[in-house]
Amino acid sequence: MVKRYLSVITLDETLALLAREFSTTPAIVRVPLENAHGRITAGPIFARYSVPEIHVSAMDGIAVVSADTKGASEQHPVTLNRALRVNTGNIVPMEYDAVIMIEDVWEEGGTYTIRKGAAPWQHIRPAGEDLAESEMVIPTGHRIRPHELGGLATYGITEISTITVRIGLVPTGSELVAHGTRPKPGQVVESNTVMAKAILEETGATCTRYPFVEDHPEKIRDAIAHAVKENDIVIVSAGSSAGTKDYTADVIAGLGEVLVHGVATKPGKPVIIGRIEKKPVFGLPGYPLSALTVLREIVLPFVKRYGMFVVDPVFIPAEITTAMAKEIGSDEFVLCTLGKIGNRWVVSPQSKGAGVQMAAIRANAYLRIPRASEGFDAGSIVNAKLMVAREEAEHALLITGSHDPVIDYLADLIRPTGVTLLSTHVGSMGGLLALRKNECHGAPAHLLSDDGTYNTEYLRKYLAETTTHLLCIAERQQGVVSRDDLSFSDIPGRRFINRQKGSGTRMLFDHELKKARIDPASIPGYEREVTTHIAVALAVKSGEADAGLCVYSAAKALGLPFVPVASERYELAFRQENADDPRLAALIEAVRSPAFIAIMERLGGYETQETGRLRPGTG
Amino acid sequence: MVKRYLSVITLDETLALLAREFSTTPAIVRVPLENAHGRITAGPIFARYSVPEIHVSAMDGIAVVSADTKGASEQHPVTLNRALRVNTGNIVPMEYDAVIMIEDVWEEGGTYTIRKGAAPWQHIRPAGEDLAESEMVIPTGHRIRPHELGGLATYGITEISTITVRIGLVPTGSELVAHGTRPKPGQVVESNTVMAKAILEETGATCTRYPFVEDHPEKIRDAIAHAVKENDIVIVSAGSSAGTKDYTADVIAGLGEVLVHGVATKPGKPVIIGRIEKKPVFGLPGYPLSALTVLREIVLPFVKRYGMFVVDPVFIPAEITTAMAKEIGSDEFVLCTLGKIGNRWVVSPQSKGAGVQMAAIRANAYLRIPRASEGFDAGSIVNAKLMVAREEAEHALLITGSHDPVIDYLADLIRPTGVTLLSTHVGSMGGLLALRKNECHGAPAHLLSDDGTYNTEYLRKYLAETTTHLLCIAERQQGVVSRDDLSFSDIPGRRFINRQKGSGTRMLFDHELKKARIDPASIPGYEREVTTHIAVALAVKSGEADAGLCVYSAAKALGLPFVPVASERYELAFRQENADDPRLAALIEAVRSPAFIAIMERLGGYETQETGRLRPGTG
Repeated sequence: MVKRYLSVITLDETLALLAREFSTTPAIVRVPLENAHGRITAGPIFARYSVPEIHVSAMDGIAVVSADTKGASEQHPVTLNRALRVNTGNIVPMEYDAVIMIEDVWEEGGTYTIRKGAAPWQHIRPAGEDLAESEMVIPTGHRIRPHELGGLATYGITEISTITVRIGLVPTGSELVAHGTRPKPGQVVESNTVMAKAILEETGATCTRYPFVEDHPEKIRDAIAHAVKENDIVIVSAGSSAGTKDYTADVIAGLGEVLVHGVATKPGKPVIIGRIEKKPVFGLPGYPLSALTVLREIVLPFVKRYGMFVVDPVFIPAEITTAMAKEIGSDEFVLCTLGKIGNRWVVSPQSKGAGVQMAAIRANAYLRIPRASEGFDAGSIVNAKLMVAREEAEHALLITGSHDPVIDYLADLIRPTGVTLLSTHVGSMGGLLALRKNECHGAPAHLLSDDGTYNTEYLRKYLAETTTHLLCIAERQQGVVSRDDLSFSDIPGRRFINRQKGSGTRMLFDHELKKARIDPASIPGYEREVTTHIAVALAVKSGEADAGLCVYSAAKALGLPFVPVASERYELAFRQENADDPRLAALIEAVRSPAFIAIMERLGGYETQETGRLRPGTG
Repeated sequence: MVKRYLSVITLDETLALLAREFSTTPAIVRVPLENAHGRITAGPIFARYSVPEIHVSAMDGIAVVSADTKGASEQHPVTLNRALRVNTGNIVPMEYDAVIMIEDVWEEGGTYTIRKGAAPWQHIRPAGEDLAESEMVIPTGHRIRPHELGGLATYGITEISTITVRIGLVPTGSELVAHGTRPKPGQVVESNTVMAKAILEETGATCTRYPFVEDHPEKIRDAIAHAVKENDIVIVSAGSSAGTKDYTADVIAGLGEVLVHGVATKPGKPVIIGRIEKKPVFGLPGYPLSALTVLREIVLPFVKRYGMFVVDPVFIPAEITTAMAKEIGSDEFVLCTLGKIGNRWVVSPQSKGAGVQMAAIRANAYLRIPRASEGFDAGSIVNAKLMVAREEAEHALLITGSHDPVIDYLADLIRPTGVTLLSTHVGSMGGLLALRKNECHGAPAHLLSDDGTYNTEYLRKYLAETTTHLLCIAERQQGVVSRDDLSFSDIPGRRFINRQKGSGTRMLFDHELKKARIDPASIPGYEREVTTHIAVALAVKSGEADAGLCVYSAAKALGLPFVPVASERYELAFRQENADDPRLAALIEAVRSPAFIAIMERLGGYETQETGRLRPGTG
């Protein structure tokens, strides 16, 4: 029978339930001082002794009796009968009550002459100046900062009681293989507990990844029971959904009870919260982005209740570039790219596919769309929550438009300068429209006009009011990718894999079809669209299609034959007002660098003679 | 002879010199994936294979041929001739082109009936949907975030080339002992390289602490030469000043060259930058806060040039509570406490003593006062640079006024609620003045009036226009601390240690002197002031003074005799407008908790009957 979720509750209800149902007392672990930064204290720390323990000199100089120095001046130097040469940190014996800096002392034949009086206690660090024996250095629940190790060492601390939460991670699924093993068809690399361990250990938790457990109720039961014994919290990866092999909920119910099955979040709905021997047991959904969402929105706030280090993300109000529609009832989380254009923060939602881990790698921010919301209109101001330091987001360079593998290489070349290139693949037309709305710093495009020119006609049409420039990235070859060395004339009748409407490659293909008087209807698969060159090549390689149109480097990367169709000018369009932006300047410099030319020559299919040339776009 | 600094240059010049004189190529180290978060990539990372490699189901359901499902509706269900049950992640064989969710399928006797058509490719994750073989996952110079380990595992990555900088830390000084050893008079716990290691390793650097080296030029030379061989950067701790045993500059000059001796910063002036075998060698000043400043302002920006992870601190514009005067010419750095009162950020400079490591533990922010500045007027808006997460600063509770050891215990009790209590010891009067200027959330005070009442008279005088409340912390005993069980009448003629003017204890002492008709002039040491009870007790314990006035708990903590003089009401004054502030509410709850009563009973000298009582102050 088809299983249904027991009870879907809201995210807020889930957090309230966790707070209500579980006591959250952390475990305690002693940590040597040298490794204590980033850990959270389990109790107050007191100074073992005073620092300094006795009066010491704060300067290199001489210890004196201040009364002896009275009346000394440039006109009336005083030669001292009693004084002691001291360096910084040396003891000042009880009979002295001041130190004079060595720069202000004239020494001759073992006697010291001064030209200025000394105030009582000047340049002396009195006993306990820093801290006195028995005083509290750091309270309970304090996260030790790196620089504090210095003070703690000084105060005699060698080991620190810190808090932790022991979390057992149980990966289940007969399809799992360890990373490093290439998955066979139908197999999956176990990645969710790898991710969970890294995320949770950042809070100060202590995670144990247990061996993979097959999809077998008894084996899962034994693994969970074992993990519950050894930990404060157990997280079972996957099997939390409603598939034919999703045993997690039943197993938890058998060992204890299921409190929640299904939380109204997207992604992340199929989450389980159970209790075994008073301990919380989470069933994590299998999709990586669902798992990430559950970890971030449910597990981290819960772990914070133990006193672990979980900081709410910093948010930045930003203009959203596209409308986001959603149904009322679920809290929805959307990974985004965020950047600053002029003085405006602009945020673009990424693909919503829960299996697309690259979305989480590309994203530097995310949105929470509350369950009562129906979404946002384009141009609304939303709170983008940062997934990077604010400084890094400030240096993001937003590149939106046509995709080419060399864009990733440009990202690679400029990253060491501190600029993060975030590219969104929406095709050449989509890029120009983003540029028109001033939602990106640059738009790569290769839009062919009927007169045989590239890009300028389209800029004139869509950005007539704006002054723009075009930077040539390369003249590149487009051609037919296939398994059987097909040429353009072989396409009719073959299964084709197409690019999305508005992409330059789609327009080139349609242009070539028209020129050759081929009817698109004669091409099976003409309606099947993907959004990158490499996706075209991969569809061909996997056998889904027989042919497609892509750049040479994509065909070469997958080892497929390539028959050239046309050479085209691949350019970056940008607005005059951003021409001096240091991020864009870094990109232009990278395009013109010998390293980039060498990369394109290695990839193949690029003519680099025009690379780096600037020409006017519009205005 | 007295050594002088070779050449004092500005901080900006120092950073420019470092950029000019040294190439900053990082070292490369291979790190297993599981440990790679927080590390920075040495080169781009590419996917080893496509994910998924072939079309798989995105749902639990049935794989179908979309054409077979045409026309299906509630009115016209369609029973399928060909279909395959698939779970999420299962392969969708090439003959199918769509998946229908199991919830929308009616199964009977092995056949499937549907009531809705399927669009081509729906609920199928096509090959390469996430990433295609050969695509770049992460560029060079990217700091790996914990959640990215999931994607990297999925894409077949098991080990990552990351960058590091090998930094050798050489502690010098015959006075050094390791932490854990109680320093004898004149000895110092070596803490600067412990701190430096923690600070620098946060950036991804790899630090080696070498054994302590005595103050002996040849030994220092050998240690530095050895460290230069094994590292990219060497940092010599201390010996960089101009004392009689400061050999660092000479040794560096002997092995290579000294480029800088003295940088115009406060603290941190006596820094050395040298070059040996093309490698940078830093001489770090010995004072911990000087060392911290040099690490933060010179070494970290330099390490950032290698590509290491160094994030500029977030700053918050805040109102400075006290005037800061400084001389033109040096960049000055001041540790501060920062908090938010109502909607105003308020920042208070801490003690400037370079040896006071507690200042860096208490501080949650710091100021940079530029070299061209003469300082700030009180009330100016300055940029406070955060040393904690912004969230933590938002939850800071500013307590300014009279000191008592129990304040630290209150800080300890409320910290687990997320509130950081930052206390500044300026005496009772100083606290009320801060409260008047609305620069703190609460002011502990014990100000005795001639009529024998506490605090209210003073509130009426200084905060007449403001509604205030008084929360009783305790009735506490003040008395004479001595080594010889002295009582108040024994004080004349003995060496006394006094508290600062404006402190309640000082006022109590003056009140008692007046009552007993004792002339302050008859008390040697009457002019010698310290600012806490424990400092009074310590001055007595160390023999500097014979007697002082302090609370019982301070005398007890240091094991000294105590003879009671008076019992006084120690209260927290706060403004009506902050009465509902959750931070203050947490403090009031802590004051009233049984745990706090128990602590005061254990410490001794506190009457707790009135503890937690609220009474009107003014208004």
